[in-house]
Amino acid sequence: RTLRIGLIAGDGIGKEVIPAGRRILEALPASLGLKFEFIDLKAGWETFQQTGTALPDETVSILKSDCDGALFGAVSSPTTAVKGYSSPIVALRKKLDLYANVRPVKTVVSAPRPIDMVIVRENTEDLYVKEERTVDTPEGKVAEAVKRISQRASSRIAAMAGEIALRRQKIRAAGAPSIHRGPLVTITHKSNVLSQTDGLFRATAREALAGPRFRDAVAVEEQIVDSMVYKLFRQPEAYDVIVAPNLYGDILSDGAAALVGSLGLVPSANVGEGFAIGEPCHGSAPDIQGQGIANPIATLRSAALMLEFLNEEAAAAKIYAAVDANLEEGKLLSPDLGGKAKTEEVVQDILRRL
Amino acid sequence: RTLRIGLIAGDGIGKEVIPAGRRILEALPASLGLKFEFIDLKAGWETFQQTGTALPDETVSILKSDCDGALFGAVSSPTTAVKGYSSPIVALRKKLDLYANVRPVKTVVSAPRPIDMVIVRENTEDLYVKEERTVDTPEGKVAEAVKRISQRASSRIAAMAGEIALRRQKIRAAGAPSIHRGPLVTITHKSNVLSQTDGLFRATAREALAGPRFRDAVAVEEQIVDSMVYKLFRQPEAYDVIVAPNLYGDILSDGAAALVGSLGLVPSANVGEGFAIGEPCHGSAPDIQGQGIANPIATLRSAALMLEFLNEEAAAAKIYAAVDANLEEGKLLSPDLGGKAKTEEVVQDILRRL
Ligand SMILES: CC(C)[C@H](C(=O)O)[C@@H](O)C(=O)O
Ligand SMILES: CC(C)[C@H](C(=O)O)[C@@H](O)C(=O)O
Repeated sequence: RTLRIGLIAGDGIGKEVIPAGRRILEALPASLGLKFEFIDLKAGWETFQQTGTALPDETVSILKSDCDGALFGAVSSPTTAVKGYSSPIVALRKKLDLYANVRPVKTVVSAPRPIDMVIVRENTEDLYVKEERTVDTPEGKVAEAVKRISQRASSRIAAMAGEIALRRQKIRAAGAPSIHRGPLVTITHKSNVLSQTDGLFRATAREALAGPRFRDAVAVEEQIVDSMVYKLFRQPEAYDVIVAPNLYGDILSDGAAALVGSLGLVPSANVGEGFAIGEPCHGSAPDIQGQGIANPIATLRSAALMLEFLNEEAAAAKIYAAVDANLEEGKLLSPDLGGKAKTEEVVQDILRRL
Repeated sequence: RTLRIGLIAGDGIGKEVIPAGRRILEALPASLGLKFEFIDLKAGWETFQQTGTALPDETVSILKSDCDGALFGAVSSPTTAVKGYSSPIVALRKKLDLYANVRPVKTVVSAPRPIDMVIVRENTEDLYVKEERTVDTPEGKVAEAVKRISQRASSRIAAMAGEIALRRQKIRAAGAPSIHRGPLVTITHKSNVLSQTDGLFRATAREALAGPRFRDAVAVEEQIVDSMVYKLFRQPEAYDVIVAPNLYGDILSDGAAALVGSLGLVPSANVGEGFAIGEPCHGSAPDIQGQGIANPIATLRSAALMLEFLNEEAAAAKIYAAVDANLEEGKLLSPDLGGKAKTEEVVQDILRRL
């Protein structure tokens, strides 16, 4: 099978980590029967400055018609609002209906405090619909934004969370070391204040997870978002799959990343029907760009995650294992993890272990 | 001076901690020249079940006309939406225009990783305006909520944050042990997605803090909310005063509470012009109610915080010192802190140190 993968490096360290993602895909053992073709695509702040748009139509149309998946690096955003600029990854998620943002956060199994959770974030609505307006009043400006929650999006994201919980359980049953006993989905919301919007998210997620496929197989709990952040830090080992509306998912996944030591370890996949974009959770990190010291692991894991959602689980497992072996050994680590290794050294160490 | 204080115990452990708040006020040394009168007031889930409203008009009107301040315990909320029920504390904040929610989060100075920050949360708008509607569509229900950010509210909350930063600096200059060098306000927002609403918050806060009173005295930084949560956990000692719109403030303060070991330590004050309601950050904790083991410290500190905002700083300082002495010694701690002491024992130990 040949997979055509779009590569959107973007800005800053995006340009340093996306090539690493490409190399690990190319280095996968031939026995897997996978071939890759890569297409470089433009997006981001540099693209905006060159072309007047942060997400050229061409990028979207090539992804739609010519690609099976993609890797997205990171983009810089202007420090003050710039007319016409808006985040290309937020736009891509909506244009390609990549309705789930899946963010696994885990330590190595031997960590003093092992964590192994996945945050499943709704990726198309909530405050990210970006419907805003501002009015002038005698007391000054007043701005409003719409937070939109639909039954349809809430239902499919909850079902995705349920599927992921089942899949993780299957991998555990096959003997993978794990800190969890049973599949658990924790629904996060703020329905004590937002009874209609978050209330709809909560009720719909509960309903989806009470269906025949999950009812007897997946335990369901819920946490109000503020309390979820508190618990995330007090007892992270208690969580397996967390499902949340867009903005809470954004916040929770950065919080969870803090627990494993660095955003540089945390991958994500933006997932739709038959399409996935792997994307490291970190940003373009202008402070370290050009130094060759960015941690490539979030991107390598994002490439694996993309493969998982393109049904290439065996290939994904190889990448995860190689990354874990590098981390377990702990000898070649990038500076964000307290090491001294350059991006290139980390990549070579991981390729060697493939 | 005689202060008239409303006592709204509410539900669950609210009934166990509010009496402790009353006792510490009564126990303040006579040399301070303060007298207190207390008025018990109703609100909460039990009140709703008895009277059909969670916040009786009488409670609001007595607070408005007869009280200088109040202590609010905690209220339980129904586990599914109940017609007519809505959170009394959210309503009180708006009805009394208590525009700032001030949440100091600190460890004892001798802690292995000392933290000393204040989260200053806007308390009247954002998604808490609770303007929601739901429509039926061919694809299912779609619910929308309004997030409202005004220049007026953003400006006054930023000014409050600036004042608090200056006040903290004054206390440090007077020789109090501290982990901070200079006053710093960190503005939290998500203007990379919400350019109008959070963009207005950010720009207005920057403007307020660039005014003559703060310009040369207070350093200003900003953090996107997801990154703020990440940083909060990675380098909490870097933050002094954090100012945020309502919902981010809610989430951040629970996150910060996790860092100091227990929500049972964290006080808050809901502050308006000349009025303040002290409120522990924890909830009604049905799991431990009636056992006499609730940590009273959040409430005792909330009583002190209320006094601070009623310009009784000397009295507040006495309470803080007594609480800190109990924690520094670490012999009589409630179970949430790993101890075995009952609420009553903790209260007596602290009263003894007043
Ligand atoms: C850059 C920003 C728009 C984005 C988001 O909020 O989704 C980022 O924080 C992320 O989590 O991918
Ligand atoms: C109970 C709830 C409505 C409240 C809030 O969200 O403000 C609580 O979480 C708090 O922080 O005081």
